[in-house]
Amino acid sequence: MTWNMARRAERLNPSIIREILKVTERPGIVSLAGGLPAAEGFPVQAMREATARVLADHPKEALQYAASEGFGPLREWVAAQLATQGMKCDADQVLITTGSQQGLDLAGKVLLDPGSTVAVESPTYLGALQAFAPYEPEFLAVDCDEQGPLPAALKAAKGARFLYMLPNFQNPSGRCMGAARRDALMAECLRLGLPVVEDNPYGDLWFDQPPAAPLAAHAPDEVLYLGSFSKVLAPGLRLGYMVAPRLLYPKLLQAKQAADLHTPGFNQRVVHEVIKNGFLDQHVPTIRARYKAQRDAMRAALERHLPAGCQWQLPAGGMFFWVTLPEGFDTLALLPRAVDAGVAYVPGAAFYASEPRMNTLRLSFVTVAPELIEQGIAALGRVLKASQELQP
Amino acid sequence: MTWNMARRAERLNPSIIREILKVTERPGIVSLAGGLPAAEGFPVQAMREATARVLADHPKEALQYAASEGFGPLREWVAAQLATQGMKCDADQVLITTGSQQGLDLAGKVLLDPGSTVAVESPTYLGALQAFAPYEPEFLAVDCDEQGPLPAALKAAKGARFLYMLPNFQNPSGRCMGAARRDALMAECLRLGLPVVEDNPYGDLWFDQPPAAPLAAHAPDEVLYLGSFSKVLAPGLRLGYMVAPRLLYPKLLQAKQAADLHTPGFNQRVVHEVIKNGFLDQHVPTIRARYKAQRDAMRAALERHLPAGCQWQLPAGGMFFWVTLPEGFDTLALLPRAVDAGVAYVPGAAFYASEPRMNTLRLSFVTVAPELIEQGIAALGRVLKASQELQP
Repeated sequence: MTWNMARRAERLNPSIIREILKVTERPGIVSLAGGLPAAEGFPVQAMREATARVLADHPKEALQYAASEGFGPLREWVAAQLATQGMKCDADQVLITTGSQQGLDLAGKVLLDPGSTVAVESPTYLGALQAFAPYEPEFLAVDCDEQGPLPAALKAAKGARFLYMLPNFQNPSGRCMGAARRDALMAECLRLGLPVVEDNPYGDLWFDQPPAAPLAAHAPDEVLYLGSFSKVLAPGLRLGYMVAPRLLYPKLLQAKQAADLHTPGFNQRVVHEVIKNGFLDQHVPTIRARYKAQRDAMRAALERHLPAGCQWQLPAGGMFFWVTLPEGFDTLALLPRAVDAGVAYVPGAAFYASEPRMNTLRLSFVTVAPELIEQGIAALGRVLKASQELQP
Repeated sequence: MTWNMARRAERLNPSIIREILKVTERPGIVSLAGGLPAAEGFPVQAMREATARVLADHPKEALQYAASEGFGPLREWVAAQLATQGMKCDADQVLITTGSQQGLDLAGKVLLDPGSTVAVESPTYLGALQAFAPYEPEFLAVDCDEQGPLPAALKAAKGARFLYMLPNFQNPSGRCMGAARRDALMAECLRLGLPVVEDNPYGDLWFDQPPAAPLAAHAPDEVLYLGSFSKVLAPGLRLGYMVAPRLLYPKLLQAKQAADLHTPGFNQRVVHEVIKNGFLDQHVPTIRARYKAQRDAMRAALERHLPAGCQWQLPAGGMFFWVTLPEGFDTLALLPRAVDAGVAYVPGAAFYASEPRMNTLRLSFVTVAPELIEQGIAALGRVLKASQELQP
């Protein structure tokens, strides 16, 4: 054999979610598995107008090589937008990324050596585990409650390269961290010298009130913040951003250059054209309303169809219900039966860095319409009840 | 200090080209430094029509999350296109990347351990050195002549993870490898068990006759091939591709997922819409004609203005002249004087993995129009002659 692969290639593995998505693309399956935003909410008309304008007014600039940092006006927009959420940063701390997934990759590239510890929530975002894994860290799962990591549990993470977390409507658990917990958590991080990578793809998708200020507002030099346009506009544009402490910015920028030179300038200009005059102030509330209605539909369906002993926390925003079945259920083993019954979910085990809880599962309430949510959850309920009858 | 960086971060450094480009954006400087395609050749009208069509016919699919492999019809187009160049591959070996720079990063990620050897040309593409460097390989510069690596020199590279090369109109040297040399080189690579990463961004930019078949046509299982739409359409779309041996494809795909989930589906669909009915057959010849005329203008200007003892090879395609000044010149030290005189180039030292030749420089003939080429080269000539008079 001619090719020899790097040791880190052993840490690259197929995404279970993407494998499940392939199966569930079969017609007739109600997929509650993927984290796909509702396509009905994509701003198609605004995109049409913006692409036409960019190609009329600045075609050469939009189609030429561009700065690795990103499109200046878009970076300024991001800094101004975050300021309204209590986070002070300058545009020159903003690095535009090819989706916020790339932000995770660049963070791993710049911050992780083989054997470095990364502290993560339990459960945590699968895509982050996949982005960090090739840099061969050890993952340390921090004890969490319904708000996220327990400050008292952080001691075990002292010396970690960073704590990775999603404070807002976390993927997969849906939980959101309150202001007091943020204060306590950041105080403990500062005491321990534990920096934070704060991932916030879902923060704008709140239903009743916005979440508390970002962790980065507490300690801008100690928090590397990641944001995304995927959930408020559309993921197919692959547009995200990092806001980096000044110490880290140059190395993240150089890693970005090495990774793909720059994020497509065309996409950056189109998105800036869409959002520059307050479009999101009108648009995001329509997404919130849609998702809240779908959350309510799923909540009602879960209450109606799931057998006794199943538990979930009502998400106050975001895209996911996280369901804990009675002990003894194995959601990975059950998945083929669920798919046969016409519904798909993601087994919760995928979201644990260690000690997976096999009786958990993640359901997206944003991808399919309320009628299909009802139909899918009814099917899930039937599968669970049938399975329960088989339990000893 | 809270943050600790990875050891590999030491291997990340600012791109000298990007630093030079910043200086040369001053008005009044004729920049022959950047490798920017001529913006006059961007297919703006075709892009307008294609974006409008994609957003009319398939807006939801174009704006939604998509497969990490890339857009199926675009992958099929790539496979069919390469077949016309003598390279047999299936669409399922094609992985769409966010520019071919990302292909270099993914190759490094999957194939390089700290201390692995990467064999490179001398000089070689700076962006590849930057992409591979964070994976902490050792670079081995292979002896080259005016066609590229000498087969007899490959023995020294036995055991390297791969030989990285650009057989067509290489960046920076402009040289192109003939068919007989390709045969001999690949025979030697196969004998040594040395796999190849073949980078081909410029192959379509030939002036008189197309280059010989890709190295991957000789040994599809031993060559990882990278291609790009940046030079035939526009770089601001960030659209490239890899064609991978079946052994490597799954790990490269997983690395791609981890890096940015997928290349923007919107861009993939727009580009496919532009090219699917033979657009490039009409469009690329116009780029060739433009670049050939600009090459001729630079050749004439070099002959007219450069002092005796300067040498260059006439590029038969691509974007660059590579100039060797008489011994004793230092093009890095001369650059500020050249910029003061109104012209910029890239000092050749940046393109060497080791033992830089300080008396070399790279000139792009595609970025500015013939009148400015004449003006820029005249200024360069004056600077060189003035400098020569100062030499002992």
